[in-house]
Amino acid sequence: MIQERLAALRSLMKQHQVDAYLVPTDDFHCSEYVGEYFKCREFITGFTGSAGTAVITMDMAGLWTDGRYFIQAAGQLAGTGVTLYRMGEEGVPTVEQFLLDTLKPGQCLGFDGRTMTARGGEELEKKLGEKQVSVSCHMDLVGDIWTDRPALSCRPAWNLDLKYAGKPRTEKIADMRKAMAEKKADYFVLTSLDDIAWLLNIRGDDVACNPVVLSYLCITQGQVLLFAQPQAFSEELTASLKHDGVTLQPYNDVYGYIAGIPAGKTMLLSCAVSNYTLKKSVPEGVRILDEDNLSLLPKAIKNPVEMANMKKAHIRDGVAVTRWMYWLKQNMGKIEITELSASAKLEEFRLLGEHYLGPSFDPIVAYGPHAAMCHYSSTPETNVALQPKGLLLADTGGQYLEGTTDITRTIAVGETTRKEKEYFTRVLRANLALGAARFLYGCDGKNLDYLARAPLWEIGQDYNHGTGHGVGYLLNVHEGPNDFRWKTRAGRPAPAVFEEGMITTDEPGFYLEGEFGIRHENVMLCRKAEKTEFGQFMEFETLTLVPFDLDAVLPEELSEREKKLLNAYHKKVYEKIAPALSEKEAAWLKQATREI
Amino acid sequence: MIQERLAALRSLMKQHQVDAYLVPTDDFHCSEYVGEYFKCREFITGFTGSAGTAVITMDMAGLWTDGRYFIQAAGQLAGTGVTLYRMGEEGVPTVEQFLLDTLKPGQCLGFDGRTMTARGGEELEKKLGEKQVSVSCHMDLVGDIWTDRPALSCRPAWNLDLKYAGKPRTEKIADMRKAMAEKKADYFVLTSLDDIAWLLNIRGDDVACNPVVLSYLCITQGQVLLFAQPQAFSEELTASLKHDGVTLQPYNDVYGYIAGIPAGKTMLLSCAVSNYTLKKSVPEGVRILDEDNLSLLPKAIKNPVEMANMKKAHIRDGVAVTRWMYWLKQNMGKIEITELSASAKLEEFRLLGEHYLGPSFDPIVAYGPHAAMCHYSSTPETNVALQPKGLLLADTGGQYLEGTTDITRTIAVGETTRKEKEYFTRVLRANLALGAARFLYGCDGKNLDYLARAPLWEIGQDYNHGTGHGVGYLLNVHEGPNDFRWKTRAGRPAPAVFEEGMITTDEPGFYLEGEFGIRHENVMLCRKAEKTEFGQFMEFETLTLVPFDLDAVLPEELSEREKKLLNAYHKKVYEKIAPALSEKEAAWLKQATREI
Repeated sequence: MIQERLAALRSLMKQHQVDAYLVPTDDFHCSEYVGEYFKCREFITGFTGSAGTAVITMDMAGLWTDGRYFIQAAGQLAGTGVTLYRMGEEGVPTVEQFLLDTLKPGQCLGFDGRTMTARGGEELEKKLGEKQVSVSCHMDLVGDIWTDRPALSCRPAWNLDLKYAGKPRTEKIADMRKAMAEKKADYFVLTSLDDIAWLLNIRGDDVACNPVVLSYLCITQGQVLLFAQPQAFSEELTASLKHDGVTLQPYNDVYGYIAGIPAGKTMLLSCAVSNYTLKKSVPEGVRILDEDNLSLLPKAIKNPVEMANMKKAHIRDGVAVTRWMYWLKQNMGKIEITELSASAKLEEFRLLGEHYLGPSFDPIVAYGPHAAMCHYSSTPETNVALQPKGLLLADTGGQYLEGTTDITRTIAVGETTRKEKEYFTRVLRANLALGAARFLYGCDGKNLDYLARAPLWEIGQDYNHGTGHGVGYLLNVHEGPNDFRWKTRAGRPAPAVFEEGMITTDEPGFYLEGEFGIRHENVMLCRKAEKTEFGQFMEFETLTLVPFDLDAVLPEELSEREKKLLNAYHKKVYEKIAPALSEKEAAWLKQATREI
Repeated sequence: MIQERLAALRSLMKQHQVDAYLVPTDDFHCSEYVGEYFKCREFITGFTGSAGTAVITMDMAGLWTDGRYFIQAAGQLAGTGVTLYRMGEEGVPTVEQFLLDTLKPGQCLGFDGRTMTARGGEELEKKLGEKQVSVSCHMDLVGDIWTDRPALSCRPAWNLDLKYAGKPRTEKIADMRKAMAEKKADYFVLTSLDDIAWLLNIRGDDVACNPVVLSYLCITQGQVLLFAQPQAFSEELTASLKHDGVTLQPYNDVYGYIAGIPAGKTMLLSCAVSNYTLKKSVPEGVRILDEDNLSLLPKAIKNPVEMANMKKAHIRDGVAVTRWMYWLKQNMGKIEITELSASAKLEEFRLLGEHYLGPSFDPIVAYGPHAAMCHYSSTPETNVALQPKGLLLADTGGQYLEGTTDITRTIAVGETTRKEKEYFTRVLRANLALGAARFLYGCDGKNLDYLARAPLWEIGQDYNHGTGHGVGYLLNVHEGPNDFRWKTRAGRPAPAVFEEGMITTDEPGFYLEGEFGIRHENVMLCRKAEKTEFGQFMEFETLTLVPFDLDAVLPEELSEREKKLLNAYHKKVYEKIAPALSEKEAAWLKQATREI
């Protein structure tokens, strides 16, 4: 089947005089997850993983993916004629290098420019251009042969009430216009879906786990044009938007609108998060200000209503996860529990709570060695039953009207080894140290990341991921620009200075291949602490309210300060969560949050 | 007298059609300290402080300086007609702002461009240019009226033996040429004196505390031209340099040489540390690569011989400072000791050791409230006798054939208050925490600075200086690019990643105005620790070997880990220093380095 599709694609490539065709994984908005409509790379290769790039030439077809997917991809590509390129392995060229090596002067690379970032597309265009290879981005050849392609998602958009959003969209739009005037930008074009949803106080369901609406937004001093699918908007919402000065336009008309902007105007467009075709549509003579979106910081800095709501969401979520921990501890050894059934049970507990809209990302519930694979997600093929020993890692989160949660707890489902306990305790020390940071205003995640690394670095160990990421408000669970990471990434902006109202995860971990994986993750709100002659001090308030499993803690490995921090946290967990529990659950929680 | 000088200057300004004349403090090499010849700003205003800028117009004369010097400057400027501009105070314009406000379109600002960095000069030129104010930098009007100006320093240059330098200059030059070829630079022009001294393995005495030679250096693939005062070079050294391909040229000829570089060539010139006139001398058509000097990193990364020698230097210095501490403890209350006499005594102890060449910076020996002034340097006017109570802060350092030292110890010269002890202990915790850092290769000073700040930040306190700076090898005591600081400074490069062989100070402090000042400073060598699957781990080896005064430590405020770190350090101090002490001194050191 794949071979037939490849043959049909090559026939179209000939018609379009394209010598190589590139199929990325992105949608048109650089979203982290993509809807069914956008799964061209899966359609043309058969590989279903969440990350990968396909390249098809007249005589080869290749799929590039990373270490998470080597085994899965090898299986799914078998017999398709598609070659697997294992990214990061020695001797394996990058996609770019492959194209540079393969394409000859005068040849042409085709792709759908809407599925690549403007920055990425321009770099590719420049490098290929130096070899006299051209690019052509106004085509969707996989779409052209995909006869039974699913429709573009068009789930109902809905209005987020002011009691959840905290600030009317009219005020947010006015803020944007003020910032535009300061930057002398006549147009501000937004393509990232969470920015649009935040700015307009609307939500939807067009991207898995992200409650957003497929759309583009263009703001001028006189107009706000929302390019979206009108049928996703009720009459009431359309009227409400209209009342607030927001006019609906057909989704795909944005490209024509941009092409019609008069020369001499200035347009703010963040090329790191906008697509290549969109940027190519900007007429000559229009000046592009390629800066962070004006909505980036106001979205990250939660307003007082959002802050208060986020606390409520974390109590709701804390109740669900705590009840689930109790259920797990009670039922281990009594009934069969698997990764998938445990995950389903947690979803049940979340659904019992109010205002729960669904998961904020695909849950990771991984037992034993599975947890050592950072991005493991259980499937019927990999699912295992929990044994009454070792550690279960559960990294899950929910979308609530009151905000977004993201929590990891690692739970002893039976006897644990000394080694498991040692690392469990070390990672707990890391989590506590970062959570207790107190710092002068001006610090960013690079200043503080060492706190979470130190307990592992002191014994030559580490974890190969960032220590934390920003979290949206009933939006993307991964949100910039605040994060914790020690390395400055080339070509990526420096981490943002922490502002009061920013919400960031604190999630150090440790992974021992073939044995176990540990991660302790809390969501934290940045708050002002005291102001002294030296400046404004800042601190974190932990929002997540679920006990760390004391069954796997070695108290003697904790310093007095660490014990105090842990005991204080557990005291707060009990106070906030116990009132919503049954008597038995509360009794268990009392014990689970005991002083050590 | 100042008024007569100002009148003479104004008369010259008229002749040169200059409406305002600017007098910075720099020499021609952006040195931290300047020789007598360069003290034009002092000559024209009477103000002797180490930092300040004078501006003279037809109807005013002003001196800008910072908070360290407000009192001194006010005194020295009294009656001169020069107005004091207190930098940083509300409503006080910066020099640049003053010039922008004062000069009118068509007017001209004059200054000696050799005393300003290329970057600073160009920024000023650009901003004034926007107001149609021109600049003229080829003049030294203060020099023209300074009839009894001291001669340019011309102290003998000398050869640093290979057993101290560790690498022949021929090899260093070859390394530079290789790097130049990679960057396609035809010329590499070096103007910073420590880079030149390091590269050629020469030392001198032309800048106070910095053993450098007034010079410029130009390297091509065929030539190395050293522009310096030939009479400072012995025949032997001249011949040795000649033998290694280094040709001496008159000091001031560098400007003509640069003006003669043919168009089409590429020249590497670090504009942040080269002077404005030099850059203005570069002909049109010569491409300037404005990057860090190629010598910056190899100079900072000490070679194995330099590392081994630095350890020896710190033993020599540790013996001197330890003996001085003993002397101080023994003699307090018995003889009168003042800040100046204590400082002189320490110099005596250093002079008793071998290979000592002099101080590496002006010693700070400050008693009681004086120590709360970060840059206090005792003078006969401010000198006070030590009372048998409180704290003495001594921040001093030496130049040895084996390297450069920089140490601060804060010493209880009698009873200390609970408050003094509390802060003394807190700052000690800061010093110990940073010294014990263990981190993955790739970290820089921004990743680690929090370690030293945390003990103060946790109680809303801080110190208003960086936590540490790089240290040269028998060169500048303040050397880039490695340092510890938490803030990224606008327009300044990010701190350098720590490499094995870099030497950096660890000097947190605490200053309570009107009461006391505390600083604990060690010099540390960065070393490789183990290499694991996660990468190369790094750590610091403390080179400084002098006890922290346990008389002011509150052991109950130290964690078990901190006690271990302190005890291990003191054990090492005793082992390395005691053998060079008298029996009585050694017995005292035993007690001073006891386990707590």
